[in-house]
Amino acid sequence: MKAYRGDIVFAPGPGELTTLQNGAVLVAESGVVQQALPALPEGFEGEVVEYGGRLLLPGFVDVHAHSSQLPICGLGYDESPTSWLERYTYPVEKKYASPAYAAALNRRLVYELWENGTTRAVLMSTTSASSTQNLMEQLEQSGLSAYVGKMNSDFAGFGGEANETTAASVRETEELVKWALHRGEKVKYALCPEFIPCCSEEAMARLGALAQQYGLPVHSHMAEGPEDVAVVRRRFPKEALYARVYNHFGLLGQTPTIMAHCLYATEEEMELLQSQNVMVAHCANAILNIPSGRYLPVRKYLAKGMRIGLGSDIGGGHTLNMPRNMVAAIQVSKLYPEYAALTVPDVFYLATKGGGSFFGKVGSFEAGYQFDALVVDDTALNEGTGYTLAERLARFIYCGERQNIQHRYCGGTEIHPPRP
Amino acid sequence: MKAYRGDIVFAPGPGELTTLQNGAVLVAESGVVQQALPALPEGFEGEVVEYGGRLLLPGFVDVHAHSSQLPICGLGYDESPTSWLERYTYPVEKKYASPAYAAALNRRLVYELWENGTTRAVLMSTTSASSTQNLMEQLEQSGLSAYVGKMNSDFAGFGGEANETTAASVRETEELVKWALHRGEKVKYALCPEFIPCCSEEAMARLGALAQQYGLPVHSHMAEGPEDVAVVRRRFPKEALYARVYNHFGLLGQTPTIMAHCLYATEEEMELLQSQNVMVAHCANAILNIPSGRYLPVRKYLAKGMRIGLGSDIGGGHTLNMPRNMVAAIQVSKLYPEYAALTVPDVFYLATKGGGSFFGKVGSFEAGYQFDALVVDDTALNEGTGYTLAERLARFIYCGERQNIQHRYCGGTEIHPPRP
Repeated sequence: MKAYRGDIVFAPGPGELTTLQNGAVLVAESGVVQQALPALPEGFEGEVVEYGGRLLLPGFVDVHAHSSQLPICGLGYDESPTSWLERYTYPVEKKYASPAYAAALNRRLVYELWENGTTRAVLMSTTSASSTQNLMEQLEQSGLSAYVGKMNSDFAGFGGEANETTAASVRETEELVKWALHRGEKVKYALCPEFIPCCSEEAMARLGALAQQYGLPVHSHMAEGPEDVAVVRRRFPKEALYARVYNHFGLLGQTPTIMAHCLYATEEEMELLQSQNVMVAHCANAILNIPSGRYLPVRKYLAKGMRIGLGSDIGGGHTLNMPRNMVAAIQVSKLYPEYAALTVPDVFYLATKGGGSFFGKVGSFEAGYQFDALVVDDTALNEGTGYTLAERLARFIYCGERQNIQHRYCGGTEIHPPRP
Repeated sequence: MKAYRGDIVFAPGPGELTTLQNGAVLVAESGVVQQALPALPEGFEGEVVEYGGRLLLPGFVDVHAHSSQLPICGLGYDESPTSWLERYTYPVEKKYASPAYAAALNRRLVYELWENGTTRAVLMSTTSASSTQNLMEQLEQSGLSAYVGKMNSDFAGFGGEANETTAASVRETEELVKWALHRGEKVKYALCPEFIPCCSEEAMARLGALAQQYGLPVHSHMAEGPEDVAVVRRRFPKEALYARVYNHFGLLGQTPTIMAHCLYATEEEMELLQSQNVMVAHCANAILNIPSGRYLPVRKYLAKGMRIGLGSDIGGGHTLNMPRNMVAAIQVSKLYPEYAALTVPDVFYLATKGGGSFFGKVGSFEAGYQFDALVVDDTALNEGTGYTLAERLARFIYCGERQNIQHRYCGGTEIHPPRP
């Protein structure tokens, strides 16, 4: 048993903060939290790790990012979404077919996740199986935890040509799934159909069968804008709605599922997602960078008890830094005054325990949770002041830099990936 | 004469970029740019400062910030604007009456401006004359350039009590003005009436006279929300409009003037501002953090030829980092699709030459401009890619960190303020 001492903050629920000034988190050898306490228990006999005066927070969880789009973050947002895809997104994804390029950029991605305090991520790779495999290997070596999948994109339903054949898409996915089966616990495969407009019926049916056969999670996009919604309606006039199509193919909660965006989802679709325990990835910076005219009323769906996490959505979002994505989520929520705005404790919950639930008991310091933790030296943010822990959390989220993070733990282990 | 070599980018106008890969900026002993060239001239005999492979950009200009609000950035945005003022803004401003507190926090402010690449700033201090004087001294020592003024806030027109008496407000201002008159060229006094609701008629009349007598610039707020607009209308039924009241007191362009926000200004007011050459400080993060329901249609006013700069507006905005404020300006502009969105070259112009014009020939590498410059090592942002200079600029603005900035020059001199 170890005790980690520090100024502890975690969010057991949306808008709820537990704060323990100079408290202690007791962690078993297994890396699982036993208890978070306001003080070190008298006569504690285990090792004490002293982070006094520093914030001790759960690690951040990013539930939607495109691993290959780190190099294009910030590019093309002045252009139309179509031009952005054609000029930046597709070309950079093709580059990942080069093993040397993929290895170098994957190394940078892993390092930047770590640097920004993201200890768990749900990543959609490119159609390239080798780059996906390389990413999974590098993540394993880093000690970070992730769900990763090769993107399946075998249908030309959204302009341009299909990115791969149906046969190759399915075969490579199945090979990767089998390769990934007997690896460690921290990095696992999740099926990643790009989105319905770019997936053939055959591929979706085969992916649904794989999900069932291997118990694989699903990670995809849904109803991001009016255009993709219209394409789905045309191609599938019987189901008409995105969620019904995914559901038809066994890709909507039959196994743990994340759907990114859902901005143009109907009430009926959102209810279907909720009843099938699907998590929605809310990607606020993508909404601000490439607006489609709608926002996800997170407050409304949290009140209904939906599962929601935050996604950086790089490269639609421009940063892996989850605090900046939390700020964007608050800012976006204020644009729609029909719902109360999200608060710091809300978005902190979403970026820790909210998204963390996709990984099991992750994102909190409650008993039974994986010890994913960040040690944050916020001294420079607090000069001459006497802030509460809730205020220090807000200051770190709004004004902190990744350099404020001194240590990162995932599953009880301190992690240090190689510098790129 | 010196030549600074690097990958040069500057914006001679809104939306216009001049890019000179491996170019040279020739700078006279006086610190004034002679020419920006695509290559070092043959037979150049002066000193060559080699920043090859790095971006060489004009320093950033922040045309509206509250120097005392650095410690409250990020706090209270979950609350109502009134509660934010009462719980955070006013208490922290009072703390600056303590010379030790003011000295420590002013040191941090100066360092953070420098760290973030802001080489010129227009700062409203608190009502405390001593903290204002200390800030001006520290800025002078740092080598940064700024307009600074003590806030005048002698009227209880917006709830609560007046922050100072009219007599003290005017006397202290005049003393500071005289003290500041014969100091260096880089740090100068600008009159800072808080805003009409918190200024007595006598104080405004006296400040207008001081502006005239000493040729002092004016830096204030205008029409930020419906509440302050309503107060002005009630108190000044004859003028009714904010701009007319400021104008009446000689505080609207009779000397160089910055008005922050102007979100609720009428067309007539905006025309008055433009005809009197007033600069508007656009503060996008403040709009996102503490929304008042309106946005400044920057595109529209740029097209009319108005003077506009970007303000961090800390603590309504949460960051001094101008690239993050540029990103916010782009994001906010996309929420109002009736005008074309701002682009990276637009906001880069606003944050350099746009705001810089308040300081004279500042914010560009055109001939005759002060050599304010940032040397940015963006190697880590460009791994494995062949970006254009315009793309590298976008990558730095969206994804860069202040740690990417290696050197900062203001008026031809490299600057290094003391670390707090």
